[in-house]
Amino acid sequence: MFESKLNKDNSDWKNSFLFQKWEKKFLNSGCKISDINCLGSSTYGGSLKTLFLSVKFVTPENHFMERSILIRNESVVIIPFRFLGNQPRFLCVMQRRITDGNISIEFPAGAVDDFKSPREAAVLELYEETGLKLKQKKLISLKENLRLSESLVDEIVHWYGCDIAMCDNKNDYMDELKIGKKKYGNMGEGEHIKIEFITLEKLKKIKSFHMRIALSFINNELSISCDDK
Amino acid sequence: MFESKLNKDNSDWKNSFLFQKWEKKFLNSGCKISDINCLGSSTYGGSLKTLFLSVKFVTPENHFMERSILIRNESVVIIPFRFLGNQPRFLCVMQRRITDGNISIEFPAGAVDDFKSPREAAVLELYEETGLKLKQKKLISLKENLRLSESLVDEIVHWYGCDIAMCDNKNDYMDELKIGKKKYGNMGEGEHIKIEFITLEKLKKIKSFHMRIALSFINNELSISCDDK
Repeated sequence: MFESKLNKDNSDWKNSFLFQKWEKKFLNSGCKISDINCLGSSTYGGSLKTLFLSVKFVTPENHFMERSILIRNESVVIIPFRFLGNQPRFLCVMQRRITDGNISIEFPAGAVDDFKSPREAAVLELYEETGLKLKQKKLISLKENLRLSESLVDEIVHWYGCDIAMCDNKNDYMDELKIGKKKYGNMGEGEHIKIEFITLEKLKKIKSFHMRIALSFINNELSISCDDK
Repeated sequence: MFESKLNKDNSDWKNSFLFQKWEKKFLNSGCKISDINCLGSSTYGGSLKTLFLSVKFVTPENHFMERSILIRNESVVIIPFRFLGNQPRFLCVMQRRITDGNISIEFPAGAVDDFKSPREAAVLELYEETGLKLKQKKLISLKENLRLSESLVDEIVHWYGCDIAMCDNKNDYMDELKIGKKKYGNMGEGEHIKIEFITLEKLKKIKSFHMRIALSFINNELSISCDDK
């Protein structure tokens, strides 16, 4: 299962795909690294999941800077929706989260591992977290390459829509009471997920970057009307 | 200046304000912590800035989980705007960022330290990063307590608007060429910031959570028209 370790005394992390991908991108900017230290890391199933580094570098403008950064894989978010008459309903995942211990309401999401494309990861996460089976070509591209944070986390997020009417097993999602009783998630990762159809009004009350951005995609890219406020 | 250290062998971090604030909130949810390890941390000027922990816990539903979390202070973002005739202009800060080494375009932002309110921090950050002097009561509250991430970072962000016409030194911001030549930021923290007035059209091209959310506040809460597609 989950393991964590401190890499104070070895530099294995320098050979990781995760680090090298970030380093290549960073050096492309013209910045030069003068020193780098691993402040911590977490691994999952033997492979590196998160690297926490302190980096000293010189910018092309010749400024010396020192910053810490958390390096992670890219990730995907999928917004599954269907219409009940004229009313849109959104399929959300509910689970306990470490940030405050409460049950959060989010759209299905997950990391893109080293050997998958974002679209492959999106189809897999959607199935793992909601049971919905969707062919890759039927994913709706909303926005690729959206940066989660400028100053702390090196994570790029790809957003997709999923019209549940396009899913192979759409009929299993007609009975809202029935789906509410099932459990989803990757048990090996200790995920315990419940799913529920949520109205637009309820989504608007959730105070998170995740939901605020999802609503902007729902409103603009998916053109599902949100009369804001 | 910036220092970083690994806290593998001591548990000073358990006595920190940062940790205790998170722990209190987390335990309030009904979750019970069974084990906790510090994977790394960063400090600034002697005080803890970021804690990276691995936490084993049991949920009220009796599920065992193990997750890593990055604990940080709350933060603020301020959206300064003014009108040039009917056209809105937004004052952005530009600086090199560790995430990809490139110069990013963002709104002024920063951490709320232990002894300040979010509004106090907002007024200070605004001044430090742009030179704008605004009285606290003239900050426009957009949305308080917006969660940055559900799964990784314990950071709550408070968003404010700033009508530059309400600033004490608004006249210094009429000549756009002049402000572009000045430098801002906290030199002690190695900040090198340039500021620039940006159009709505240009803001829309920036692919970040930060800017996507800012645009949603500009459009909805500030009612500055964005004709999105």
